[in-house]
Amino acid sequence: MCIGDELLIGQTINTNAGWLGQQLNSIGIRVARTTVIADDKHEIRAALDELSARSQLIIITGGLGPTKDDITKKTLCEYFESTLVVHQPTLDRVTEFFASKNIPLLEMNKQQALVPANCTVVDNTRGTAPGMWIEKSGVVIISMPGVPYEMKGIMDDGLLDKLKLHFNQPDIVHRTILTMGIGESMLADKIIDWEDSLAEHNIRLAYLPSPGMVKLRMSGYEVESGEKLNAVLDTKEAELIQLVGSYIFGHGKETLEEIVGRLLSKNNKTLSIAESCTGGNLSKLITSIPGSSQYYLGSVTSYQNEIKTNLLGVKSALIAEKGVVSREVAEQMAMGVRSLMNADFALATTGIAGPEGGSPEAPIGTVCIAVAGPSGVESATFKFGINRHRNIEMSSNTALNMLRKEILGSIAC
Amino acid sequence: MCIGDELLIGQTINTNAGWLGQQLNSIGIRVARTTVIADDKHEIRAALDELSARSQLIIITGGLGPTKDDITKKTLCEYFESTLVVHQPTLDRVTEFFASKNIPLLEMNKQQALVPANCTVVDNTRGTAPGMWIEKSGVVIISMPGVPYEMKGIMDDGLLDKLKLHFNQPDIVHRTILTMGIGESMLADKIIDWEDSLAEHNIRLAYLPSPGMVKLRMSGYEVESGEKLNAVLDTKEAELIQLVGSYIFGHGKETLEEIVGRLLSKNNKTLSIAESCTGGNLSKLITSIPGSSQYYLGSVTSYQNEIKTNLLGVKSALIAEKGVVSREVAEQMAMGVRSLMNADFALATTGIAGPEGGSPEAPIGTVCIAVAGPSGVESATFKFGINRHRNIEMSSNTALNMLRKEILGSIAC
Repeated sequence: MCIGDELLIGQTINTNAGWLGQQLNSIGIRVARTTVIADDKHEIRAALDELSARSQLIIITGGLGPTKDDITKKTLCEYFESTLVVHQPTLDRVTEFFASKNIPLLEMNKQQALVPANCTVVDNTRGTAPGMWIEKSGVVIISMPGVPYEMKGIMDDGLLDKLKLHFNQPDIVHRTILTMGIGESMLADKIIDWEDSLAEHNIRLAYLPSPGMVKLRMSGYEVESGEKLNAVLDTKEAELIQLVGSYIFGHGKETLEEIVGRLLSKNNKTLSIAESCTGGNLSKLITSIPGSSQYYLGSVTSYQNEIKTNLLGVKSALIAEKGVVSREVAEQMAMGVRSLMNADFALATTGIAGPEGGSPEAPIGTVCIAVAGPSGVESATFKFGINRHRNIEMSSNTALNMLRKEILGSIAC
Repeated sequence: MCIGDELLIGQTINTNAGWLGQQLNSIGIRVARTTVIADDKHEIRAALDELSARSQLIIITGGLGPTKDDITKKTLCEYFESTLVVHQPTLDRVTEFFASKNIPLLEMNKQQALVPANCTVVDNTRGTAPGMWIEKSGVVIISMPGVPYEMKGIMDDGLLDKLKLHFNQPDIVHRTILTMGIGESMLADKIIDWEDSLAEHNIRLAYLPSPGMVKLRMSGYEVESGEKLNAVLDTKEAELIQLVGSYIFGHGKETLEEIVGRLLSKNNKTLSIAESCTGGNLSKLITSIPGSSQYYLGSVTSYQNEIKTNLLGVKSALIAEKGVVSREVAEQMAMGVRSLMNADFALATTGIAGPEGGSPEAPIGTVCIAVAGPSGVESATFKFGINRHRNIEMSSNTALNMLRKEILGSIAC
């Protein structure tokens, strides 16, 4: 149960529910339902009534801040007919927190240390609002702040372990295989018999499309033994690789930027990037990986032709002849940034992300991508769609996958 | 009602619910609850029973794909005791779609054109699964694909207008004011009397903290006239500016990158960026805005010292003396990229994003940011936290806000 008007009106995207689902799933707790409601006493009470009747565990996030619109704690206290009492360790922590930052401690900050008498406090070391664990008629109710950073901290710091111990469930096993370069229905058609064969092992299959990719997720339920199930999943995965292996680029929660980073790091190779239509997104993805400074040298974002010619050495005549959105320009950008930064591999993108700037030769969504490496340079032209953000995302993923193949090819050589 | 195992186990973040909330809110429809459930016939039926009893409108997303795990359409058909019939315009569209892409049309693609006989088809021009509008006992039930790009297209292409016409509600008025550089409780303390004064106008206030920012949202309900309410909100906003104006940077759904882009564009000024710890994220944010090529020249991401010295002209001696994470190096980076790209303004970041790389002088979370403009260069050092992604986000927002102030200051001069 996620509480917050801002979630319902879409001012804030609810990332907590999904993250909690992942964590709970990993300890065998199946999330049957996620409910988002308003910061409203009656809504909270009604949802507690409904959810208590159908669940053994209710996790609540949100509404624990110090300000007047935060009513979760008071409502829980009334609902469970308890009273608010001071939790001294929390008060000490809050006092120290404000002192260390040289910020005056306000009355509303002190009230953060009040908790219902019937709860067990779950420590929050990253913020002032403590988590709460309440048990009533066999149902566990947990209340945590809605700030993702604090909520995740509470879970990581021990709450997840405590839940695992309390509920003691066999783990649910998921196996996800990541594909790129083939559409959902074409993929389904290629693996139709394989998909049918999963049923006898109680394995469910889901297709998860995202820009440029389709993720295939096998889920094992009703297991006698995790070991046996894992063996079955290994077999099924091997069969899948036989069928559509050339489209598979990774597994599980891996991202292309992680896979590429691992390949570069393992082979002691370096990378530089020249971006036009992706505008920095490729560099952002690469550097989102901790430790990327080991293999990443840097990038040039050239949003103007002069930067392409002056910094990356793309010939003005080539731009005039082939157009700035051309495989030739992409290739010169890649070779240019590779030599500028003295890198082993380099990526380059040039295209029309939209919504403006299209032409008959290069309509919106036209993107040229080049990858340069020790064995030369390769490039391709793609026709994506009309949505700017989607075009940037598709271009970035496609570029990373081209780089992945180039590194693998060059290692094999 | 969002249907999808991938949402419950957190493999996909549910962005549809929030987006729909925004859209519905804008036509005066209050979203009372968001429910996420599994691709499971019994769960779907149970949720339909519950939601029909409490709502006048149920919007369903997900489970309309061509593959076997997609069961929403079949379940809806059974639930409403209808039968599946071919919707010829959809079949024609699907056939044409596959022909235009030179992909063979499979049997499962043809089945996308089957819809329950009791529904009105809502066109989906971006994918193969049509939307559906069903009315039963005074409740409107809408079913749409879960792919955000398709779902948003259906809403934008006419469904939202149709809903507005059907429900004919007075609009709910929100007014959001964006602040940066002051904590939630300190802000609340400064505006305590002002906040109390909102109640008499039936205005609710919410505090929405996000990394480095607090958004204040006033919501007007139970309105006689939108005009009168807007006048009250104008007055209240003017009062708020008196109290905490120096922390306010924007309004509504504006982002810092939009505000900065607008300032640059309006004043015919250009921007270049040198990024170290933000790794491309600043450039990505700037170029996420359509039309940014008008004022954005480009960036250098210098993830290695050599790039800082060779490309940006930072003196090696300075790095040795002051450390690469220093205001002095940030300033040279900003001035370097400003002159390299011949820009009016330039931003630079250098810091330790973590989780590795900290030192006693510059622990993880230390970030130096510089902004250079026609009137010189300014810089500051910040101490953020231990989380890599949060540090990158906080650094980017802080840098954009420094740029905003610098542009405003230079225009005023």
